[in-house]
Amino acid sequence: MRPIEGLTVLLDMDTKEVVEVSDTGRSIPIPKATNTDYRFSEQKLQQDLNSINPISIEQPKGPSFVIEDEHLVKWANWEFHLKPDTRAGVVVSRAKVRDLESGVLRDVMYKGFTSELFVPYMDPTDAWYFKTYMDAGEYGFGLQAMPLDPLNDCPRNAYYMDGVFAAGDGVPYVRSNMVCVFERYTGDIGWRHAESPITGMEIKEVRPKVTLVVRMAASVANYDYIVDWEFQTDGLIRIKVGLSGILMVKGTAYENMNQVEGQENLFGTLLSENVIGVIHDHYITFYLDMDIDGSDNSFVNVNIKRQETSPGESPRKSYLKAVRNVAKTEKDAQIQLKLYDPSEFHVINPTKKTRVGNPVGYKVVPGGTAASLLDHEDPPQKRGAFTNNQIWVTPYNRSEQWAGGLFVYQSHGEDTLDVWSERDRPIENKDIVVWYTLGFHHIPCQEDFPIMPTVSSSFDLKPVNFFESNPILRAPPYFEKDLPVCRPAYSA
Amino acid sequence: MRPIEGLTVLLDMDTKEVVEVSDTGRSIPIPKATNTDYRFSEQKLQQDLNSINPISIEQPKGPSFVIEDEHLVKWANWEFHLKPDTRAGVVVSRAKVRDLESGVLRDVMYKGFTSELFVPYMDPTDAWYFKTYMDAGEYGFGLQAMPLDPLNDCPRNAYYMDGVFAAGDGVPYVRSNMVCVFERYTGDIGWRHAESPITGMEIKEVRPKVTLVVRMAASVANYDYIVDWEFQTDGLIRIKVGLSGILMVKGTAYENMNQVEGQENLFGTLLSENVIGVIHDHYITFYLDMDIDGSDNSFVNVNIKRQETSPGESPRKSYLKAVRNVAKTEKDAQIQLKLYDPSEFHVINPTKKTRVGNPVGYKVVPGGTAASLLDHEDPPQKRGAFTNNQIWVTPYNRSEQWAGGLFVYQSHGEDTLDVWSERDRPIENKDIVVWYTLGFHHIPCQEDFPIMPTVSSSFDLKPVNFFESNPILRAPPYFEKDLPVCRPAYSA
Repeated sequence: MRPIEGLTVLLDMDTKEVVEVSDTGRSIPIPKATNTDYRFSEQKLQQDLNSINPISIEQPKGPSFVIEDEHLVKWANWEFHLKPDTRAGVVVSRAKVRDLESGVLRDVMYKGFTSELFVPYMDPTDAWYFKTYMDAGEYGFGLQAMPLDPLNDCPRNAYYMDGVFAAGDGVPYVRSNMVCVFERYTGDIGWRHAESPITGMEIKEVRPKVTLVVRMAASVANYDYIVDWEFQTDGLIRIKVGLSGILMVKGTAYENMNQVEGQENLFGTLLSENVIGVIHDHYITFYLDMDIDGSDNSFVNVNIKRQETSPGESPRKSYLKAVRNVAKTEKDAQIQLKLYDPSEFHVINPTKKTRVGNPVGYKVVPGGTAASLLDHEDPPQKRGAFTNNQIWVTPYNRSEQWAGGLFVYQSHGEDTLDVWSERDRPIENKDIVVWYTLGFHHIPCQEDFPIMPTVSSSFDLKPVNFFESNPILRAPPYFEKDLPVCRPAYSA
Repeated sequence: MRPIEGLTVLLDMDTKEVVEVSDTGRSIPIPKATNTDYRFSEQKLQQDLNSINPISIEQPKGPSFVIEDEHLVKWANWEFHLKPDTRAGVVVSRAKVRDLESGVLRDVMYKGFTSELFVPYMDPTDAWYFKTYMDAGEYGFGLQAMPLDPLNDCPRNAYYMDGVFAAGDGVPYVRSNMVCVFERYTGDIGWRHAESPITGMEIKEVRPKVTLVVRMAASVANYDYIVDWEFQTDGLIRIKVGLSGILMVKGTAYENMNQVEGQENLFGTLLSENVIGVIHDHYITFYLDMDIDGSDNSFVNVNIKRQETSPGESPRKSYLKAVRNVAKTEKDAQIQLKLYDPSEFHVINPTKKTRVGNPVGYKVVPGGTAASLLDHEDPPQKRGAFTNNQIWVTPYNRSEQWAGGLFVYQSHGEDTLDVWSERDRPIENKDIVVWYTLGFHHIPCQEDFPIMPTVSSSFDLKPVNFFESNPILRAPPYFEKDLPVCRPAYSA
C-alpha cells in the first residue's frame, strides 16, 4: 500500500545487467502507512464485531470421507483423485458418482483444474502497461499456495493435505497443509416441498444439504485466490473462486477527489490519500475433461428460442422452445454468452440414454461472467486470447493443457486455446475438453483498502438427464436425536 | 405428477356456473404413481446417503442477535425491521449499518421486499396457454408460506417468527414459524492474505465469515420458493431465491423418446413414462427503496468502456475505463444487462462524500440473470412487463409497490412498473426505488422428478465507497479456545 510510483528498472535476466532505470514519479509522495496494517495483533478491538458468539460447523463423529493412498477421496456417492500441483494448484481427476439405483460408479470428469489466469491492469502508462499477469504459467498457482490457516481458512472439521514438489534445483520439498477437504452444512436446503393446506394433506418434507469442499488458497504476491471444488450428493459440482488480499495500487499526488480536474483519467479509484486502486480484470480459465459415462462425448448447445404462434393458434403470441444443436467442430463450440439469446450447454454421451430415451449428460451452468473487452490485437489480449470466449470445447490432446500455452513468459499468443480451437477439429462423439472462464471486472472501492473482503463467483457442472430421477430423493432429514451435543468453551 | 391431461373447466366466478368443459386428452393415459412419493416414511434406505456423519452449525452460547418489539433485529453492526407480509412474504425495512469508526448507525435501505413473481409456461396449447402465474399478486407469497421445518428448513440455532394476518373474513390468525433468523458460518473466508515467503515476513491473516440469514419458504401450490436475506458484517446484503418442489407436468402418450417423430415439439422434457416437464421461466422482482445516508439518492451507471490508446502512446493498444453516468430520469435507468457492454450500478448520496471525496454509495451486483424473451405484445408479457428490463429505478411513490400492479388478476398491463417508468420522471437526487429481477429459464430434466433439488440464484447490495475502508479489518480470527465443545449424540 506504499508504492514508490513511477520507478521502474529494466533488467536483462541473461546478462544480469540493468538496461534502463526510469523514475518519472518524483513528484508523487509515498503514501503514509496509516491504517494499512492488517495484522490482528496491531488492531484496536471493535466491540460490534467481537460480539458474535462462537459459531462453527461441528461434526463430532468425525468426517464421513476416507482418503485412500493419500489421494483418492471417497465421500457419500462420490469418488475422485486429488493432487496438489505446482502450476494448476489443485487437480481433481477421475471424478465418479455412484448411481444409487444401480450401485454403479459412473464417470463424470476425467480431469479438471485451473489452467490459466489472466489479470490485465487498465493503465497504459509507462510503469503499468506491462501488468497483465498470467498467474498459473508465470508464477505457479500451486507454488504460491501457502499453508492454510486451520479454523480460519477451513472449518474445524477439515482434513489437510500436503503438497510434495520438486524445487527448481530438483530437491523435493513439502508444502504442508496446502489443500483442505471438509464437509459443509450451511443451513441450506437440498430439496423441499410442503403441500398446500387446501389439499387436506399435512405433508412437509425438507432435506438439509451437506456437501464436500476441497479448498486451496494461492497468494500470488499481493492478491489471494481461494479455489473451491464443491461436490453435492445430487451430482452437482460447483467450482468457486474467491478473491481477497491486497490491491495493486498506484501512487498519486492527489489527496482528495476535489483536486482532480473533471477530464483527468485516474485509471482507478482514489482509495486513501495518495493511493489509487487501478481498475483490472481477473479471468480464471478451467480445463474440464468431461467423461460422461465414458470418454466419447458430444457438446450440445440447447438454445432457448422464442417461437411466435400462428394467427388463431393460441391466445398466446409467443413461447420459448429448446432447440438442440450438436457441435460438430470446435468453432461450433466457441461460445460468447448472451442474455437475450440464451442456451444451456450440455456435455452428453450420445451412445447412452436414460430409461425414457434422453441422452445422459452434464451441463455447464455459467456464473461469474465478465468478458474481456480489450482489443484482440492488444499484445496482452493476444497472450490472453483464451478469454475471447467464455466456453470452448476442444478434442483431447495431451499437449493442450495450459490455455495460455506451456511457456507463457515468451508467448506472443502463438500457443493458446484460441489458436488450437481455430483449427476447427471435429469434436462430436470424441474425448472432449470443455474450457470455462470465470471473469471479474474490478473497479476498486475504499472498502478494498487496505485489504479486500472476499468477492466470489462460481459456475456449476450439473447432471442433466444423467440420473433417472432425483438422486437424493431418499436422503434422510435431520433428526434432533442425531445431532451433536455442544456446550460453550468457557464452561469446559 | 399424475396429470389428467387436457381436461379444463371454465367457471364463471360471479355466477358460479360452469361455462365450458374441454376434454381433449382422452387418449393420454394418467401416469403411474411409481416413484413419485417423496415422503421419507415411504423410502427404502440408501446406504451412501445415510453414511454422512451428523454435521451441524453449532452456537452453544446462543444467538448474538436480539429482536426487540418482536420485529427489530439487532445483530453485529446491523439493525433492521422484519415483518411477515401476506403478499410480499417478508418485508425488510429501515436497514441500517453501524459505521465502526464513528459508531454512527447509517441508513442503507428504507424498505425491501419481493414485489412480484412472473412464471410463464411455454406451451401455447389449450390447457396450458394461461399458465403464466404472478404468485405474489395472485396467491400471496406470504399466504403460501407454510411453517418452516426446524432443523431442516433452518439450522438448529435458528429463531422463528410467526406471521399474524387477517383472513379473508377479517378474523386474525397466526401462521407459526413462518420466518426464521439465524447466524451462519459456512467455512467461507471474510478476507485473507498471506505474505509471499520472498518478503521474509511470516504473515498470514485470515478472518472467518459469519452472516445473519432471514429465511421464508413459500409453497405456491406445486413449487417451493426459498427466499433468503443475508446480512454480512462487511455491509453486503445478499438476496437469494431457491427453487424446489414439484414441477408442473403435462401428460403425454409417449413412454420413450424413441416414439417421438423428429419435428414434434413436446414443449418440454420427457421426465418419466407419460410425463413431460414443461419449459418455463421464473422471474422474481424485488422492490428496493434504497436510502444511502438519507432518502435523497442518485443512480449512477458506471460504464466499463474500452479505450483505445493513441499511436505511440503506449505498447498497449487498449484498456478499460470507468465512465460515470448519473441517471437524470427513469428512462436513463431502464437497464438490460450486456456482457460486452458492462456497468456497475451505484446508488449514491450525491451530497455526502468520503474523506478522500468519493460519493458514498451501494451497488446492485446482478446475479441470476435471465431475460424474458416473450413477445412484448403477448398478453402474459404485457402483464409481466416489469421483466422487460433487469433493473429499473423510479421515484418513490406510495402507490407503486407491486411491479405487476395492485390487482394483477384483472391486469391487462395498464398498471405495471413498465408503465410507471415510461412517464420518465426525474430521479436524480430524489428518494428512489431500485427494482431488480432475478430470472431463471427452466428446461426440466429427469433429476427434477418427482421433486427437484434446489436451484438458487442471488444478487447483492454491496457498499461502494460507503465506508472509509474495509469495515471488517478489525474483526477477530477464530481461536480454538473459543469454539464449542461437542460430542456425538450417541454418547449422550
